[in-house]
Amino acid sequence: MKSVADLDTPAVTVHLDVMESNIRRVHGHLAKHGIANRPHIKTHKIPAIGALQMRAGAVGITCQKIGEVEVFADAAIADDVLLTFNVLGREKTDRLMAVSRRLNRLAVVFDNEVVARGLSEAAVRHNGEVPFLIECDTGFGRNGVQTPEAALDLARTAMKLPRLRFEGLMTFPNREPATREFLSRALELFKRAGIRVPVVSGGGTPAIFRAQEFPMLTEHRAGTYIYNDVMVVASGTATWDDCAMRVRATVVSRPTDTRAVIDAGTKVLTSDQYTVTGYGHLIEYPDAVVTALSEEHGIVDLSACRERPKIGDAVSVVPNHCCVVSNMVDEVYGVRQGTVEVTWPVAARGTVR
Amino acid sequence: MKSVADLDTPAVTVHLDVMESNIRRVHGHLAKHGIANRPHIKTHKIPAIGALQMRAGAVGITCQKIGEVEVFADAAIADDVLLTFNVLGREKTDRLMAVSRRLNRLAVVFDNEVVARGLSEAAVRHNGEVPFLIECDTGFGRNGVQTPEAALDLARTAMKLPRLRFEGLMTFPNREPATREFLSRALELFKRAGIRVPVVSGGGTPAIFRAQEFPMLTEHRAGTYIYNDVMVVASGTATWDDCAMRVRATVVSRPTDTRAVIDAGTKVLTSDQYTVTGYGHLIEYPDAVVTALSEEHGIVDLSACRERPKIGDAVSVVPNHCCVVSNMVDEVYGVRQGTVEVTWPVAARGTVR
Repeated sequence: MKSVADLDTPAVTVHLDVMESNIRRVHGHLAKHGIANRPHIKTHKIPAIGALQMRAGAVGITCQKIGEVEVFADAAIADDVLLTFNVLGREKTDRLMAVSRRLNRLAVVFDNEVVARGLSEAAVRHNGEVPFLIECDTGFGRNGVQTPEAALDLARTAMKLPRLRFEGLMTFPNREPATREFLSRALELFKRAGIRVPVVSGGGTPAIFRAQEFPMLTEHRAGTYIYNDVMVVASGTATWDDCAMRVRATVVSRPTDTRAVIDAGTKVLTSDQYTVTGYGHLIEYPDAVVTALSEEHGIVDLSACRERPKIGDAVSVVPNHCCVVSNMVDEVYGVRQGTVEVTWPVAARGTVR
Repeated sequence: MKSVADLDTPAVTVHLDVMESNIRRVHGHLAKHGIANRPHIKTHKIPAIGALQMRAGAVGITCQKIGEVEVFADAAIADDVLLTFNVLGREKTDRLMAVSRRLNRLAVVFDNEVVARGLSEAAVRHNGEVPFLIECDTGFGRNGVQTPEAALDLARTAMKLPRLRFEGLMTFPNREPATREFLSRALELFKRAGIRVPVVSGGGTPAIFRAQEFPMLTEHRAGTYIYNDVMVVASGTATWDDCAMRVRATVVSRPTDTRAVIDAGTKVLTSDQYTVTGYGHLIEYPDAVVTALSEEHGIVDLSACRERPKIGDAVSVVPNHCCVVSNMVDEVYGVRQGTVEVTWPVAARGTVR
């Protein structure tokens, strides 16, 4: 078997022991609290990893693009899929109906009537049915109806359209008291209106270990936990030891005593920063700071490091945001105890539509 | 022919009239000043576009990864290639020597002796020769020798190694007086040492129209100019009309009166910001601000817009940094006068090594 040290760089590695432990830990927590686990596959985009999540007890998977649903349907690893994106336009709704025939359940979310009408028309065209959740903006400021009343209104409107089946409510992320209040109020309104709400779907990796504080949740969607990254560590939800994805890179230049340049830039690590500083955490040099990235260069400030790497040394970078790294590369390497155990094509990489 | 309006979104379009005009304008400027044009193909990663640049008079191309060199060698569009990256490790140097046999000239840059020795050993193994430039850090703070004296020292060291051929000096970018001073001083040192310096290679799109202020330059490498983007417009080097790459996206949600959500996030537009604010410029709504990106959502603040898009409307986004967008998608659409004239696979996408 090939040694990890023999992988040419940059190479995206996944430490299998760590990943398997992440799967067990997260699934165990949600199971203990009776919350169904519906992992989001956008993080890894690899059917074999989705299969491991299903085997651990996941109820189904979450996708963000129809292209992801199609790739995972081809792999037949789960027959219950939730697509958490407003699906709009004839080309996409036709694809949605086509792939839904290959699954036991393909549910979608929406937050407006235009999307609802398009889905209904597609379901009529294809003689199918579309189960749906109402997406609620409970404070994140992205998609979603703005009030519990609007959630009920949209559900009622959509329930009058042919071949749409109301299944519940969805939000992201569920961390703040405002989310709990929004969902409680909405459930009260639906109850008063005599509408059953079988599913309440929450999401987000930093929210996993507090999901039980939202007693209305029937399921939880999280993606990043499979690998973890600098952002998850910064949120307090994981430690460096829980970070399964490590980008192996090589020091290609040491222009000054305090500067190293590695062969990984935005075209591998991406420029995602969100709330963290720097562009990745170097396992071997924890005091190093990746201060800047060009497309193919990473600039590392070694000022705070007592030990410093030399030209040709390999380093292991925990990226800021693993979900976008997966989408940059054609394959990742599953490694264990220093050897490459498996090479996985990132089958759903680049499914922009 | 397919209409641009019929492209499902998100879709990366290239406006061919604009791109062709960019090629002419940049080549014309450099030609007027007697500076050879060696476009950097990392921006587009598409051999057919490289062929257009060669046809316009480029002396050769620049690549940043061996994978790019291999893809472009397969396409046989240029036989003179400069690889501007420290090539390190046996796997890469073997690939370098192999692909060099398919080209008339494949030159590299380096800034340290470790890389020089590895290249020399590879050249001996393969019975070849490696032409090289010394990479100089003339102020950018990335790779490069730190002083003109160090440039001469490294050149001398490398010239003593078997099968390396000194060809000159390379820097990026050439905008500041410090760059001119560094190069002048270095050329003086090389002259005194009796070493000819046939090539002085500068680079960078914002530097193109001031390249003549660096009279020692024999060639210029620029990539971004082929498409231009928000960063180039911010630098004053192009206008919105010069931006050939436009990411077509659809408004999928209008959660509030001032918020629109489009179906393009970091997995198409990337989170590159560098010096600019926001995450892209909307051609149809120039007062809109893309305030945040999730992986598949773009959040647009419409507060300053009198006209506002409705759900289902398409928008055209000039990305912040076109070079990283190319690397996200499998194909781009060449469009002219509202129709799709050509679909180009991004042949060198994902060539991380």
